Amino acid sequence: MDGRIVRIAELDIDPAQLAAYRRLLAEEIEASVDNEPGVLMLHAVSEKERPERIRILEVYANRDAYDAHLQTPHFLKYKAGTADMVKGLKLVDADPVMMRGKTLDQRHELG
Amino acid sequence: MDGRIVRIAELDIDPAQLAAYRRLLAEEIEASVDNEPGVLMLHAVSEKERPERIRILEVYANRDAYDAHLQTPHFLKYKAGTADMVKGLKLVDADPVMMRGKTLDQRHELG
Repeated sequence: MDGRIVRIAELDIDPAQLAAYRRLLAEEIEASVDNEPGVLMLHAVSEKERPERIRILEVYANRDAYDAHLQTPHFLKYKAGTADMVKGLKLVDADPVMMRGKTLDQRHELG
Repeated sequence: MDGRIVRIAELDIDPAQLAAYRRLLAEEIEASVDNEPGVLMLHAVSEKERPERIRILEVYANRDAYDAHLQTPHFLKYKAGTADMVKGLKLVDADPVMMRGKTLDQRHELG
């Protein structure tokens, strides 16, 4: 392996604040992937049957990239802004089996 | 929404057959994303602490694309070849919150 960090975050959100949470998360993901070279992928979905249950597939280039991510203004804003919305958070470390999307470039990055 | 299907598959694999399962899954993912226009993303990972637990984030263009996928030779080969390896399978329908990877093209497809 090449030091990449792959993880699934599982979050339970206060249903009363779900719309606000989704906005803050979407904003944070856009800022991270657009501005941080080492944030390779953030794919966040909500379960259809339990929309307050959020899962995020995260890929970072390496540990340094992840540590740097935690200190960025956009991440700190997300973390502070959502602190009282997040009722549960579980982080599941993972290894890729095969990750493919439609784009050649991404295939080379993550395949 | 535009009809895309987003789903998380959670599988429990017979530990004794895990290496063989991973090979069959990887092969199936490559064939699907490379050859089927409507299979937009298949990202499979295994949990570090429980490698026999596999999760796949799946994105299909629409219901027709998904139905066609189920009839392809590579999917049928995977399904038959892994039938006695898969001890549990749960399909969780999902809605995207924000899905971003490093590639502009993918951003346009899936953002």
